[in-house]
Amino acid sequence: MKLTEDKHILIVGMGLLGGSYAQSLTAQGFSVRCITRRQSSVDYAVGKGWIESGATAADPELIAWADVAILALYPHIFLEWIAENGKHFRKGTVLTDVTGVKSSVVYRVQELLPDGVEFIAAHPMAGKEVYGVENSDPGIFRGANYIVTPTEKNTAEAIELCRNLGERLGFAHISELTPEKHDRMIAYVSQLTHCIAVSLMTCNRDPHLQDYTGDSFRDLTRIARINEEMWSELFALNKEALISQIDAFAGELHRIRTYLSDGNEEKLKEMMRLSTARRALFDKKTESNTESTGTPS
Amino acid sequence: MKLTEDKHILIVGMGLLGGSYAQSLTAQGFSVRCITRRQSSVDYAVGKGWIESGATAADPELIAWADVAILALYPHIFLEWIAENGKHFRKGTVLTDVTGVKSSVVYRVQELLPDGVEFIAAHPMAGKEVYGVENSDPGIFRGANYIVTPTEKNTAEAIELCRNLGERLGFAHISELTPEKHDRMIAYVSQLTHCIAVSLMTCNRDPHLQDYTGDSFRDLTRIARINEEMWSELFALNKEALISQIDAFAGELHRIRTYLSDGNEEKLKEMMRLSTARRALFDKKTESNTESTGTPS
Repeated sequence: MKLTEDKHILIVGMGLLGGSYAQSLTAQGFSVRCITRRQSSVDYAVGKGWIESGATAADPELIAWADVAILALYPHIFLEWIAENGKHFRKGTVLTDVTGVKSSVVYRVQELLPDGVEFIAAHPMAGKEVYGVENSDPGIFRGANYIVTPTEKNTAEAIELCRNLGERLGFAHISELTPEKHDRMIAYVSQLTHCIAVSLMTCNRDPHLQDYTGDSFRDLTRIARINEEMWSELFALNKEALISQIDAFAGELHRIRTYLSDGNEEKLKEMMRLSTARRALFDKKTESNTESTGTPS
Repeated sequence: MKLTEDKHILIVGMGLLGGSYAQSLTAQGFSVRCITRRQSSVDYAVGKGWIESGATAADPELIAWADVAILALYPHIFLEWIAENGKHFRKGTVLTDVTGVKSSVVYRVQELLPDGVEFIAAHPMAGKEVYGVENSDPGIFRGANYIVTPTEKNTAEAIELCRNLGERLGFAHISELTPEKHDRMIAYVSQLTHCIAVSLMTCNRDPHLQDYTGDSFRDLTRIARINEEMWSELFALNKEALISQIDAFAGELHRIRTYLSDGNEEKLKEMMRLSTARRALFDKKTESNTESTGTPS
C-alpha cells in the first residue's frame, strides 16, 4: 500500500516529533489533524498551518476520520491511550508510532487493537535537545535512520506503507528489525551512550571544567542534557538489554585499565587499531571532516 | 614580554600542529623556520610560504637563530631532542611546546636546558582526525582552549609571552594550571573520553551498526579513530591520573546499572538531572543548536 496524498493522517501527540511529522506531511499535500493534551499545541500547529485542526480530547469521530494514525506519545501514555481509544479506529486504518523501545510496546498495542486495525511500529532515530511543537523541524529527519519493526501480525501492505512514510519524511536509511533485535541494538547505540554521557558528567565535580574541555569532551557529553522522564522510562522498558550492554562496555573499559596498569602498550594499541578500523566504517556515512582526534583535545 | 613580529620563531616538528602554528605566525609577519624529520615536510611548508626555510638536521646555527622555539614533537622524541640539542639555544631564548601531558615532561625539559634558556609549557587543545603538515590549518585553534602550565622556574615574562602566543593563534580561552592539575584534568576531559570511545567501538561486533546509529553514537565515537602511537604514549605518561578517572567514571556507570536493576527510577532521574544541569554550563560556550537528546537517536 502506497502512502498517497488522499490519505487522512491523524497525529496523536503534537510535540517535537508529532509537529515535525505534521509539517512535512502537510507540506506534501496530506490532510493532517491531531489529538494532543494542550490546546496551546493545537493552536500553535494550526496557526503555523501545520495541521487542519486538532482536539484535546480523544474525539471518536476524529479517530474514525483517520486512514493513517501516528502515535507520538511516551510509551506508558501510548499504551493507556490505545487501551482507551483503540476501539474508535475504522477497520483498515494503519497505526504507526515513534517509540524508542519496541518489544515492551508493540505486542501489547497489537493485542489491544480491534481486528482490521493494524499497528506497524517504527522508530525514527532523530531528535533535538529541545522539546515541544514549537521546536519541531522536519530537518531533523535528513540523514537520519528510520527503523520499522514488524511482527508476524503485520501485513506486507502495512510494512510498505510504513517504509513509505519514512521515505516521505526524508530519512536517509530505512531498515527493518524484529522488535527484539531493535531493542538490543538501541540499548547499545542509544541507551548505553546516554548512560555514558550521564556518568561522564556526574563523575567529576570541577566547576571550571568548561574552561579546559576540547571537542572530544563536548561531543561525548552533548547528550548529557537529558529528558529524565522520557529516558528513565525508556531505560526501564529495556532494562535487560541495556544492562547487558553496560556490562559489555564496562568490560572493555576495564581491559584498557588493565593494559594501562600492566604497561601492556601492544595490547592497548591493538584495541585502538580495532576501534579505528570499526569507526572508519561510519565516516563513509558522515559528512564531518573536522573530527578531532589528531591531538589531545 | 610581548611576542612582537621581530622575533625569530623556530618550529621543531612540522606536522599538523607545527604547520598550523607556522601558517598563522607567518601570516602575522613573523620570520618562521623549522627543523623536522622529513625533507618533504620542509619542501611542502616552504612551497606553501608557511616558513622561510627549514632543515632536517638539528643545525646548531638554526637553533641559535631562534628567539622563540615551539617544540611540536611526540613526548619521548621531544625529550631526546632537547637532551641532544638544548645546548645550542642562545641565552634568552624562550621554548614552548604542544605536548598533551605535562608533569612527566616539563620538569625534565627544564632540567635539561642550559641556564638562561627558559621552557614554558603549553597545551593547545585542538586537533584533527588527520595528520601531517599537509593537513595543517590554523582554523582548528578558533574556539579552542589553550592551557599554560608554568612551574616555579618560569618567569612572568615567559608566561606572558606564552599566553600572548596563544592569543595570536586565536584560541578562545587561555588559562594557567600547574602541570599536575593539567594532567588530572586532561585525564578526565581528554584521555578518559578516548578510552570510552575506544571501548564503545570494541564492545560490539554487529557489522551493520552504521545503519542503525543516530547522532549520539556518532558523537561518542568520533574520537574512536585514534592515533595509537601518540595516544598509547600519552596514556602511559599519565597512567595514575587516567586510571583514577577511569575508576571514577566506571563507578558512576555502575551506579546507573544498580538503579536500573533495582528499578530505582527516582535515583536514576536524580543523576540525569545533575547531568543535565552540569552539561548546561557547557552550552553557553558552544554554538551548536542541533544537539540531539530529545528522542532516542
